[in-house]
Amino acid sequence: MIIVMKPNATPNQISQVLQRIEESGFRAHISRGEERTIIGVIGDERHLDPDQWNVLEGVERTMRVLRPYKLASREFHQENTVIEVGDVRIGGDQIAIMAGPCSVESREQILETARAVKEAGAVILRGGAFKPRTSPYSFQGLGEEGLKLLAEAREETGLLVVTEVMSPDQVPLVAHYADILQIGARNMQNYPLLRAVGEVDKPVLLKRGMSSTIEELLLAAEYILSRGNYNVMLCERGIRTFERATRNTFDINAIPVLKELTHLPVIADPSHGVGLWQHVIPVARGAIAAGADGLLIEVHPDPAKAWSDGAQSLTPENFARLVAEVRRVAEAVGRSVAEPTDAQTATVAA
Amino acid sequence: MIIVMKPNATPNQISQVLQRIEESGFRAHISRGEERTIIGVIGDERHLDPDQWNVLEGVERTMRVLRPYKLASREFHQENTVIEVGDVRIGGDQIAIMAGPCSVESREQILETARAVKEAGAVILRGGAFKPRTSPYSFQGLGEEGLKLLAEAREETGLLVVTEVMSPDQVPLVAHYADILQIGARNMQNYPLLRAVGEVDKPVLLKRGMSSTIEELLLAAEYILSRGNYNVMLCERGIRTFERATRNTFDINAIPVLKELTHLPVIADPSHGVGLWQHVIPVARGAIAAGADGLLIEVHPDPAKAWSDGAQSLTPENFARLVAEVRRVAEAVGRSVAEPTDAQTATVAA
Amino acid sequence: MIIVMKPNATPNQISQVLQRIEESGFRAHISRGEERTIIGVIGDERHLDPDQWNVLEGVERTMRVLRPYKLASREFHQENTVIEVGDVRIGGDQIAIMAGPCSVESREQILETARAVKEAGAVILRGGAFKPRTSPYSFQGLGEEGLKLLAEAREETGLLVVTEVMSPDQVPLVAHYADILQIGARNMQNYPLLRAVGEVDKPVLLKRGMSSTIEELLLAAEYILSRGNYNVMLCERGIRTFERATRNTFDINAIPVLKELTHLPVIADPSHGVGLWQHVIPVARGAIAAGADGLLIEVHPDPAKAWSDGAQSLTPENFARLVAEVRRVAEAVGRSVAEPTDAQTATVAA
Amino acid sequence: MIIVMKPNATPNQISQVLQRIEESGFRAHISRGEERTIIGVIGDERHLDPDQWNVLEGVERTMRVLRPYKLASREFHQENTVIEVGDVRIGGDQIAIMAGPCSVESREQILETARAVKEAGAVILRGGAFKPRTSPYSFQGLGEEGLKLLAEAREETGLLVVTEVMSPDQVPLVAHYADILQIGARNMQNYPLLRAVGEVDKPVLLKRGMSSTIEELLLAAEYILSRGNYNVMLCERGIRTFERATRNTFDINAIPVLKELTHLPVIADPSHGVGLWQHVIPVARGAIAAGADGLLIEVHPDPAKAWSDGAQSLTPENFARLVAEVRRVAEAVGRSVAEPTDAQTATVAA
Repeated sequence: MIIVMKPNATPNQISQVLQRIEESGFRAHISRGEERTIIGVIGDERHLDPDQWNVLEGVERTMRVLRPYKLASREFHQENTVIEVGDVRIGGDQIAIMAGPCSVESREQILETARAVKEAGAVILRGGAFKPRTSPYSFQGLGEEGLKLLAEAREETGLLVVTEVMSPDQVPLVAHYADILQIGARNMQNYPLLRAVGEVDKPVLLKRGMSSTIEELLLAAEYILSRGNYNVMLCERGIRTFERATRNTFDINAIPVLKELTHLPVIADPSHGVGLWQHVIPVARGAIAAGADGLLIEVHPDPAKAWSDGAQSLTPENFARLVAEVRRVAEAVGRSVAEPTDAQTATVAA
Repeated sequence: MIIVMKPNATPNQISQVLQRIEESGFRAHISRGEERTIIGVIGDERHLDPDQWNVLEGVERTMRVLRPYKLASREFHQENTVIEVGDVRIGGDQIAIMAGPCSVESREQILETARAVKEAGAVILRGGAFKPRTSPYSFQGLGEEGLKLLAEAREETGLLVVTEVMSPDQVPLVAHYADILQIGARNMQNYPLLRAVGEVDKPVLLKRGMSSTIEELLLAAEYILSRGNYNVMLCERGIRTFERATRNTFDINAIPVLKELTHLPVIADPSHGVGLWQHVIPVARGAIAAGADGLLIEVHPDPAKAWSDGAQSLTPENFARLVAEVRRVAEAVGRSVAEPTDAQTATVAA
Repeated sequence: MIIVMKPNATPNQISQVLQRIEESGFRAHISRGEERTIIGVIGDERHLDPDQWNVLEGVERTMRVLRPYKLASREFHQENTVIEVGDVRIGGDQIAIMAGPCSVESREQILETARAVKEAGAVILRGGAFKPRTSPYSFQGLGEEGLKLLAEAREETGLLVVTEVMSPDQVPLVAHYADILQIGARNMQNYPLLRAVGEVDKPVLLKRGMSSTIEELLLAAEYILSRGNYNVMLCERGIRTFERATRNTFDINAIPVLKELTHLPVIADPSHGVGLWQHVIPVARGAIAAGADGLLIEVHPDPAKAWSDGAQSLTPENFARLVAEVRRVAEAVGRSVAEPTDAQTATVAA
Repeated sequence: MIIVMKPNATPNQISQVLQRIEESGFRAHISRGEERTIIGVIGDERHLDPDQWNVLEGVERTMRVLRPYKLASREFHQENTVIEVGDVRIGGDQIAIMAGPCSVESREQILETARAVKEAGAVILRGGAFKPRTSPYSFQGLGEEGLKLLAEAREETGLLVVTEVMSPDQVPLVAHYADILQIGARNMQNYPLLRAVGEVDKPVLLKRGMSSTIEELLLAAEYILSRGNYNVMLCERGIRTFERATRNTFDINAIPVLKELTHLPVIADPSHGVGLWQHVIPVARGAIAAGADGLLIEVHPDPAKAWSDGAQSLTPENFARLVAEVRRVAEAVGRSVAEPTDAQTATVAA
C-alpha cells in the first residue's frame, strides 16, 4: 500500500503514520517528492484496509499495490483451472455449451427442451427451479418439484444439470439434485450463500452482479475458494449501464481481462447479456471469439409462452443455428465445441 | 399495457395478438395509426409480463401503463405512512436521526458511541453485528455478541437499535435484539430474506441496492409489504456511477421522486452516499432540504481506528455539528428534528 | 507519479525505467517491497502521461500523485474566486439566481419571463438563442435574433444575461450580446470552443458534461483559465446514470467536492439535474443546503407551450415559490439570496 | 405517440388534450382502460416533442411509438449502405481495417507505421493531426503539418487516410487532405460540426460519444445525412461505465443492434473500447464475430514512446497477428478481410 501525504503534512503527522505502520507489523519506506511525501507500506497488504489509513491526519490518499484477492489470482495459480463435471471438462480447449429454459415450467417443457438442446450440441442443461424475480407478483419457480424434473431430464438425456440456489438453507437440497450450483447475479454478494456453496462438493457457476466490477467478482469467488471449494467458474452476463436499447451491456472486455487475472474458467451468458433473442447469436459468437470457455443460453420450445425471459429465449431451431455458428468461430480461434460424451449418448440411446 | 405492432405486421399477426389477449382474460382496444397499429390491453396488468408479448410475431414492442407495484404506491395509500418504533415516529413532521458505528467492535466502543450520539441528538443507534464485506479477509462482524452489546447500549441510553440482518435464518435472532431490521444494499434483491422480514413484527429499513432503480426499490418493498409487514422505510444510500471522486453518487433526486410515488418514509444515508467524512454534513443538509424523513449517519469515537468505514465516519464532535446544522435546515423547510423522548431521557437519567 | 513494477520484473527492466525517468528530467526513488518494487517519480508530474509509462516492460501500473490541473485547484489559489458581473458578485456570501426559458421563442415570451423572474428575485436572465438539440428535426433556436431579444430584456429589466455559445466562430457574436457565456454540457470537451472563450473578457458558465467526471470538469476549466480568462463558474447539471425515473441524476456530492478541490464558484442547475418540474424545488433547496453558490432555473410563462424543455420548466408562480423556499434554506446555512441591485431596480423603475 | 392520462384525470383535462392534438394537425384515438385513459396520437410524430405533452394537466406520461430518426433507419432504407472510398468498399462483404498511430508525431513515425500496417493488411491509415486531449498540458497534435505528413504517407503507400476534424472552420482544411473525416467521441453532439461535415463530399466516420445511447448516435448521424452527406459510417468505441479495470466498456451489443436499426456500416474501435493493448486482439476478434464491418486500430512503432495512447497501441508485430487472427474469424462468419487494391499495391511498387 502507498500512502500519499498532503502537501502541508507536518513532520509530526508523518511520524504518526510511520508509528502506526510499525504497530501494525509492517515496514515503511519514505520517499520525499517536491510537493508531497509518499510512504510505502511493505508487507502483505491484503489484510490492510486503505480506509483506515485515509483518515489519519495529514494523509491525502492511499493506494493499494497488490490485488485484494489471492486464491483466485493467476499469480497464485498460473495454470488454467479445468473443472471436471461428469465427463465434461470446463476451462480446457473445448467450449462447453449449457442451454435450457429460464424456468422449469412443466415436465413436458423441460424434457422437450432437454432433448432439443442435446440434439443441437449442448452438454449441460440449465433451468431455474428457484427464481429470483423483481416483482413479487411474477412466477417464483416450481421449487423442489422443478429440481426433480431437472433430474428426470438428466436421467433421460445424460445432460448434466446446472440450476440456481438462492439461500444458504437451500444449498443441501439443490446440491442433491444439481451437478453445478448457480449463484445468480443478484446474489453475487450474498456472503452467507457464498460461504455455504464454498463448503459443498459441487462446482459453482458464479454470475457477475449486474453492477459489480471485475475485482468484486473475483473477491466473491475468493469467498467460495477460501472455504475449500476450488471448482468455481465465473460468468459474464452483462452489466447495467445507461444504454436502454438492450437489457444489459455484455462486457466482452471482461473475458480477456478475467483470463489474464484469474485461472478460473469464464462462461458467457449472451442471453442476459443482450436480452433480445435476435441478437443472442452474434453476441455468443463474439464471446467465443474473445476467448470464453463456455456459453449459457436460454432456450424455450415456444418463447412466446415462456413464463419468464421469453424475449431473450431462442427457439430450438435458432439454438441449433447458434451451435453451428459458434462451432465455426471456435475453430477459427483454435478451439472446439465439446460434444456429448459417450456416456451421454449411451443414456439417450438406452 | 400497450402493444406496438411492427409497420409490416399482417392482419393475421394482429388477430393472433388479439386472441392471446382474450385468452389471458383481458380486453383489447385497437388503434390504427398511419405507420403502426397499436393495441391497448385493458385489465389489471400487474400480473402481465411484457416480455411474454414482445416475442409474439409482428410485435415491435410493449409498454407498461401501470406501475408494477401496488401496496407501496401512493395511489393505493395516499397518506404518508408513519412508523412508530418505541416513542419515535418516522415519516411524520419530525426528522429521525439514526447514528452509530459501521460495526460494533467492542463494549467500550459501542457504549461510548451510543452516549455521544444520544447527547448530540440521535434517537436511534445504528451498528453492524453481521457485516457484508467485499473481501473475505475483512472483519465480518461480532455476530450475536454484537447484538448483545447493542441491546446493552439500548438499556443504558434508551436509544432504539437498528442493525442489519443478512440471511433468512438470522431473522429471528436479529429480531430478538433489534428494534428495526436493516436490509443492506447488497441484499435489496435477496428475495428469501425480503420474504422473511415480511413475516416479522418489526419495522424494516430497506436500503436501495447500489445499482437498483427507484422502481426496483419499490418492488423490493412490495415483497415485504405483500407478506403483511407494512412498516417499511426506504433508504437512499448512493448509487454506483462512473464518478470516481466519491465512493457512491448520492441520488438526491430519489427523495422527492419517492415521496411522490410512495407513502413510505424515506431515510437518507449520506455516509455511504458520498463516502468521505468531510462531505457528509453538506450532503446530509441537502437531503433534509430535499425532504428526507430521517438520516442514517456513521459515527465512531476514533475513525482512524475503526475496523470498517473509517473514511466516512464522523467523530462525535462533527456529528454534533451535523445535528445542529441539520436542525436549522429542518426548520427552514417547516420540520424539526426529533428529540430524545421522555422515556429515553429517563433511561439515561436513571 | 508512482510506478509499480510487476512481481517478476527483472533488474534490467527496472534499470530501463530508471533511465527513462532521468532522461525525462525527473528523479527516481526506489522502494523494494516484499512482492513488488515501486518507483516514485519526483518532479512536476503534470506534464507526464501515465499511459507512456504503463507500456514499459516490467511495469504493472502507474498512479498519479498530483492532481492534473493547477490553475483551477485550491492548492494553487486558496481563496474563493468571486466573479463580478455588473453589480452581481458570484461565489461570495450571496447566492445568485439565474432564471429564464430554455429557448428564447419570441419577444413577448422573453420579456414576460424576464419581468416575472426579476419580480420573483432572479438577478440574471437565462435563455438559449443557439440550441443544441438531440434531433435535427427539433427547434434549433432563433440565433442572433434571440440574442437581440435577450439584450432588449436586459435593457428593460436590468437583469444580466447568460446564454450559450456553441462554436468558436460564434464567440464574438455571443460575447457582444451576453454578460456571461455558457458552455453547454455537450460541449464541455469541445476544446477549440474552450480555448476561444478563454480569450474573451466575459465570465464563463461551464456546464459539466453529462458523463464527465469532476476531474474532467476541472480540466475543462483549466483550458479556459490557461488562456487567461479566470472568471469561470462551474455548473453541476446532473449526470447520466442507469436510473430512468428522472432525466439525469443530480450529483449533489459534486458540490462539496468541488468546493474542496477548487476556488471557482459552483452553480447548480436542478432543472436539468432532475428534469421533472415538480421535483425542481426540492432539489434546488438541497443544492443550496449543500453549499452551491447559485442556481440556474428554467422558467416559462406557459410550460405546456414551451418549444423545448417544457417538462422541466417552472411557471412564474412556482419559481416565486422556489425563491422564497431557497431564501429560507440559504439563511439556515448562513448565506442569503442576492437581491436585484440598485442599478437593476432603477432600470425597471425608469 | 401515446399519452397516458392520470387515473384521476377529469373529462375536461382529457378534452383539452384532444383539442391540443387537433390544433397540432394530428388525429386522436381514445382508449379507456380500467384505471387509465390512453390517447393515441396519429400522424408523423417525429416532429412532436413528448416533453411538450407531459406538462399538460392530467397527463401522466407520454411514449413515442416511432423512432425519432428517419434517414438513418433501416425502415427508410432497407439495403446496407456500402461506402466507396477510392477502391475500398465499406459495409459490404469485406471487412476494412484502418490502422495507425493515435497522433501523427513525425515524418519517420507516420511513414514507418504506414508501411507496417499496409504490409500487415490495413487498407486505410489513421492518425490524428488535431487531437482532443483531456488536459490542456498534453500534446495537442501537429495540426496542418500532421495532415501533410498523412498525405505524404498516402502518396507513398496508397493507403487512404482517415483523420479527425474538431471544429466547423477546420472542415475545409481537413477535407483537403483526408479521404475520410472522423468525428471524435467528444464531438458526437457538436451540432455545428455535424452540420459542417454534412455539407462536404467526403465520407464521415462518426464515433459514438462515450456516454451516448445508440439512439443518440443515430440522431447524430441523422444530422449529417439530413444535410445531404449519405456516406456515414458509425463507430462503436466503448462506453463509460462503472467498471474500472478497462478504460471503456466495448459495447459489443451495439453491433447487432445497429445492424438491425440502420443501413449504415458499423466500424469497431477495440483500441479505445478496451484501452489496454494486451486485450485489443480478443476484442477485435469478438467485434468481427459479432458482425462489424471494419476495425479501427491504434498501432505505433514503439508504443512506449508514443506521445498519446501508448497503453492501447499495438506494435506492428502484434498488429500483424491481429490481422491474421481476424482473417480467420471473418471467414468463420462468411466474410473476408479487404486486401490492398491493385492501385494501392501499384503505389507501393512504384
